[in-house]
Amino acid sequence: MRSVVFFVLVLMCLTSAKADPLPSWNTGSAKDRIIAFVETVTDPLSTDYVTPSDRVAVFDNDGTLWAEKPLYFQFLYALDRLKEKAAADPSILSTDVLRAAVDGDIETVAKSGKEGLLEIVMVSHAGISVEAFQADVAEWLADARHPTKDIPFVSMTYQPMLELLRYLRDEGFSTYIVSGGGIHFIRAFAEDAYGIPTENVIGSAGKTRYDIVDGAPTLLKDPGIAFIDDKAGKPVGIDSKIGKTPIFVGGNSDGDFEMLEWATSADGPRFGLIVHHTDAEREWAYDRDSHVGRLDRGLDEAADRGWLLVDMAKDWNRIWSGKN
Amino acid sequence: MRSVVFFVLVLMCLTSAKADPLPSWNTGSAKDRIIAFVETVTDPLSTDYVTPSDRVAVFDNDGTLWAEKPLYFQFLYALDRLKEKAAADPSILSTDVLRAAVDGDIETVAKSGKEGLLEIVMVSHAGISVEAFQADVAEWLADARHPTKDIPFVSMTYQPMLELLRYLRDEGFSTYIVSGGGIHFIRAFAEDAYGIPTENVIGSAGKTRYDIVDGAPTLLKDPGIAFIDDKAGKPVGIDSKIGKTPIFVGGNSDGDFEMLEWATSADGPRFGLIVHHTDAEREWAYDRDSHVGRLDRGLDEAADRGWLLVDMAKDWNRIWSGKN
Repeated sequence: MRSVVFFVLVLMCLTSAKADPLPSWNTGSAKDRIIAFVETVTDPLSTDYVTPSDRVAVFDNDGTLWAEKPLYFQFLYALDRLKEKAAADPSILSTDVLRAAVDGDIETVAKSGKEGLLEIVMVSHAGISVEAFQADVAEWLADARHPTKDIPFVSMTYQPMLELLRYLRDEGFSTYIVSGGGIHFIRAFAEDAYGIPTENVIGSAGKTRYDIVDGAPTLLKDPGIAFIDDKAGKPVGIDSKIGKTPIFVGGNSDGDFEMLEWATSADGPRFGLIVHHTDAEREWAYDRDSHVGRLDRGLDEAADRGWLLVDMAKDWNRIWSGKN
Repeated sequence: MRSVVFFVLVLMCLTSAKADPLPSWNTGSAKDRIIAFVETVTDPLSTDYVTPSDRVAVFDNDGTLWAEKPLYFQFLYALDRLKEKAAADPSILSTDVLRAAVDGDIETVAKSGKEGLLEIVMVSHAGISVEAFQADVAEWLADARHPTKDIPFVSMTYQPMLELLRYLRDEGFSTYIVSGGGIHFIRAFAEDAYGIPTENVIGSAGKTRYDIVDGAPTLLKDPGIAFIDDKAGKPVGIDSKIGKTPIFVGGNSDGDFEMLEWATSADGPRFGLIVHHTDAEREWAYDRDSHVGRLDRGLDEAADRGWLLVDMAKDWNRIWSGKN
């Protein structure tokens, strides 16, 4: 009996040692570099060893953990809700962008830039409690389907990145989202989709107000912007929420440049990763000329700065987490 | 040999079962209520069981975890640094409050209210990197002594509250600071003093800016306020950083009222605690008429709302964490 137990234990150890933490990553330098970094910073005998409390890993969301074409999914949600609101009260459509939005003219909306997108978000997201908003987002995500892929949005998280998140957590890292997208939108699905709890979500935020509504203390989403978690705002958001400089940073666009630049220039071992959208067949291929997820400076400087450029077409043997 | 191991294990279990998690709390209803709550929410068989990920406990800092008389310690730091800056450049003393501050007229400063205090903080804290600021605070705390008690400020954390923080963490709670004080100031000592890491510190914040300084990516403290984490700002700050409604809330002043009101009115088991400063001999006795830590509405409504009013003189057999 004892020898059987011993045999099983040995087998478990061997299996565990051989288990591939990143099965959706093709064998090659990208995968090797990630694993080498993680093994180094978690090796107590390494001079680059990092204590678990400092193993902070941050990831952009749109285009890094899930897709962002033809438009950030949060804006597709905002468009749906804007249409509903406009049907009830057409007077809210006070600008060209808002009118284009309800007409389904996504191209015009995309071209309006972040200001136009923010306008739509403001009109569609405000005047509701945080709790009701998050419940509404969850409800939308449960039913809505991507306009061209025709699959649920939560199926469009990237399987290789989910594996990376899990691998890092298994190795004692804390994983955070640091997104230009709205914090309350992301919190509605981050735990289920990524295993990332609400307290590890950093994002842009509209104004939030505390008030007593019908006798109940309530947090309300007001119009107006409290914080934009993009570009130089990302290091500021990380400082505000975490107070530590991440040792692992993943992004996909120039909106992540400052976050990558700041973290990877700090002392000690650091890892910068950029998801390069190179797969027109399975996903989309875009970088310098894209309205969303524009990657230009990051593409030019990644090599010199030692950042890993992940070639989606080459490095990933599977894209989506969902069956499709 | 086996029987010895067994005996030791039994002894450890018995000792552990009998160990008092709150030795600085006198036997009585305050201590009993805290322990009864914790035992209930951590009991998987209880209908009021709460999963560890939702065991969020938040505490005000000044007057709740450490003392706040004659003035918030952060302002004593700000005064010291303001004097140094004014010696180098007297022109920065552009208002009555700033002049009173460098003259050591603490009474006038205290009467100037939060606006006056903020003015001093703004002038003394800005124009430095976050990293340099936190190092400077740590240096100040290592040397500075309380103006009347003549002991280091970090000795003036409350031993009973340190025990409560540790007890909650041992029982699977996450413990956070939610303070009207500055986030960077508190982070400089929260880990050492309270075992609370930087990512669990929520506080007021001046503006922070990302910039390249002498070639190095740097976070800089700018003049101006980004967020006031006080009164109705506390629920907003908790939503922004944590995204969950705490089940345990500790405070000491009306600045904590909304945080207590919001959290304890939510569904499920909730615990509200107010430290009432009743001990003129060992600490200070103050409530409704105090410039700092004013407790008025909370004192009136605590009983009806089911919040525990901790009577410092009666409930605590020891005040300070430091030897004195």
